[in-house]
Amino acid sequence: MTAEVINTSPIELTTDEIFAAHEGGKLEVGLTAPLESKRDLSIAYTPGVAQVSRAIHAEPELARQYTWASRLVAVVSDGSAVLGLGDIGASASLPVMEGKAALFKQFAGLDSIPLVIESNDVDEIVETVVRMRSSFGAVNLEDISAPRCFEIEARLIEALDMPVMHDDQHGTAVVVLAALMNAAKFVGRESSSLKIVISGAGAAGIAVAEILLAAGISDVTILDSRGVIHSGREDLTEVKAEYAARTNPRGTTGGIVEALAGADVFVGVSAGTVPEEALAGMSEDAIVFALSNPDPEVHPEIAAKYAKVVATGRSDFANQINNVLAFPGIFRGALDSGARRITSGMKVAAANAIAEIAAEKLSADYIIPSPLDARVAPAVTAAVMAAAEAEQA
Amino acid sequence: MTAEVINTSPIELTTDEIFAAHEGGKLEVGLTAPLESKRDLSIAYTPGVAQVSRAIHAEPELARQYTWASRLVAVVSDGSAVLGLGDIGASASLPVMEGKAALFKQFAGLDSIPLVIESNDVDEIVETVVRMRSSFGAVNLEDISAPRCFEIEARLIEALDMPVMHDDQHGTAVVVLAALMNAAKFVGRESSSLKIVISGAGAAGIAVAEILLAAGISDVTILDSRGVIHSGREDLTEVKAEYAARTNPRGTTGGIVEALAGADVFVGVSAGTVPEEALAGMSEDAIVFALSNPDPEVHPEIAAKYAKVVATGRSDFANQINNVLAFPGIFRGALDSGARRITSGMKVAAANAIAEIAAEKLSADYIIPSPLDARVAPAVTAAVMAAAEAEQA
Repeated sequence: MTAEVINTSPIELTTDEIFAAHEGGKLEVGLTAPLESKRDLSIAYTPGVAQVSRAIHAEPELARQYTWASRLVAVVSDGSAVLGLGDIGASASLPVMEGKAALFKQFAGLDSIPLVIESNDVDEIVETVVRMRSSFGAVNLEDISAPRCFEIEARLIEALDMPVMHDDQHGTAVVVLAALMNAAKFVGRESSSLKIVISGAGAAGIAVAEILLAAGISDVTILDSRGVIHSGREDLTEVKAEYAARTNPRGTTGGIVEALAGADVFVGVSAGTVPEEALAGMSEDAIVFALSNPDPEVHPEIAAKYAKVVATGRSDFANQINNVLAFPGIFRGALDSGARRITSGMKVAAANAIAEIAAEKLSADYIIPSPLDARVAPAVTAAVMAAAEAEQA
Repeated sequence: MTAEVINTSPIELTTDEIFAAHEGGKLEVGLTAPLESKRDLSIAYTPGVAQVSRAIHAEPELARQYTWASRLVAVVSDGSAVLGLGDIGASASLPVMEGKAALFKQFAGLDSIPLVIESNDVDEIVETVVRMRSSFGAVNLEDISAPRCFEIEARLIEALDMPVMHDDQHGTAVVVLAALMNAAKFVGRESSSLKIVISGAGAAGIAVAEILLAAGISDVTILDSRGVIHSGREDLTEVKAEYAARTNPRGTTGGIVEALAGADVFVGVSAGTVPEEALAGMSEDAIVFALSNPDPEVHPEIAAKYAKVVATGRSDFANQINNVLAFPGIFRGALDSGARRITSGMKVAAANAIAEIAAEKLSADYIIPSPLDARVAPAVTAAVMAAAEAEQA
């Protein structure tokens, strides 16, 4: 039995249409109150504003209430790992960051500004964001290459009293977990019993492993471009060495064929390919998430020969794993609850909320809600708020 | 003969009303295009946006056309010299910067984001703005204390290929020059023949001196808190020493009484006071600009006993000298013309444009347009663009 893969009318876009839509950029700043009369001016600017500034100076916590910072997400990037394009630099990454800011507004009603940094140096990026910290209320790190992204995120979380999240890691991980819980349900398995193989040890791969472990799934094996990550390897970065110790409980070695032998789940976040022979060795109820964009590790029609459930990152196939299901609600929930951290518990809660929405009509082609499903962000927001309150994050 | 000072119904504001208007801040981010369908998403975000990023990577100049940066002004402050409040820090200055951003939008249709920096160190502030440079198209420095503001502005102008202006200096200077040209006209004097005394050698005082010199007015004398600035003094900062050499052509020494003896114009930007006896020594057609806020150096009714024209910085007296007449059009003109610098010529052109609008109905109580006069910003924009093109700035 194989999953029926539906090619849902691929969207044909012309170059002209894309560039026309980007003319002048995609964002604008608006006023929340009129500024037309002398009176308006006296309230919003001098002399009235002085009272507000004086109050915040006396009681810094009031900045949350009387500035836009507490509902403003900075989308921060150095443009070092942009989509499939790689290290294209700060300026060229700006259209992506504007798009991200637009998604925050559209899906969670959060204001957001792109801040792109002309530096690839970890210290400089951290220092720059820390110096700007009073300008915003949360930091969405975006498209920063591994392994620098791990250190930048960790140091900003440490330095800032506000939610900080690298979306390429955790947004992806949350949606993968949501989809995986539903896929397991569909094939009649407990997710904690699944043998999972992650191909790719970059930002997304490591974060997927992390959230799976946090969700109580222990049989996780990761591959990088040189094969299975295990503690016998001597060519591992610090981060990979840490995960060598925490994953691969059966001590697998070798490549993708060895890793997938008897595995239940393949999660591809590698920008590579997976050979058909490797998929053929998977278990009977196999689940394949081939998430590389624009080219999945395996075409979903091929994957469907070996798997009961197939998902990709693309909008023109069924089961699109798209971060937009997660990050708007995660940040909205964190900001609304006044949380200072986005914890593992909040991420797992977000995944549960996303999964629940699709759970009611589960099928091989519907394990995850559509990115446009307007129920998702409010549900994620509520779940994250509840988790934040429970944890007092 | 004295100017008739009209107290134009002072605006009474309640604290409640001011704080209510600031609840949640005064700005929001909006989308310039819909983001509702799968198609919209594919254009504004993945996969469509990749084409735009790739194009900018190949041809960096395209960032001007396909991002919002080229119409975005960063309002940058360290909160070290905020209104009359002094060094209240970055976070407490944010409501002022939000107000400033709102004014950019309202008067010039420019998008603007406040970026407040948690540092008072010149190197760190410059470095931070330079690293963020691809995020915006112009920098409005705001409420940064002297003398650091001079160095920060000079270094950012040097480092960035975009318009940079410290508004407390040059916005004020432009509007003072505009008002002065009309006041001179009203009293029947050539402005180049005026003897001018500036009380205050901070950001505004130095910039006023600079623009007067640039406009061909040579008899300018500046006072700081210790008296007249002259080249015999040994307690001068580098900037003051430079202006000691360029101003005070008659070698005046002493205090405000000595400086104002026989002077035609008093420009107060000092947060101090000017004694009545000093004003009494001014020439027959005296002009008094008492610009300190909220308390002018002399009450306009007192000043009117000795001067034919009186102006203040306040909205409840006639002749309000308000930067909002200048900065929206200056930045709009600079950005629209693609200028890389805001030159003296562009500032003088802005002053001329502002003056011209009031010139048609000149009176002692109308030497400068109202801050709400919608004709001003477009006129300033056009004048600045013309100057930029003439100079190829």
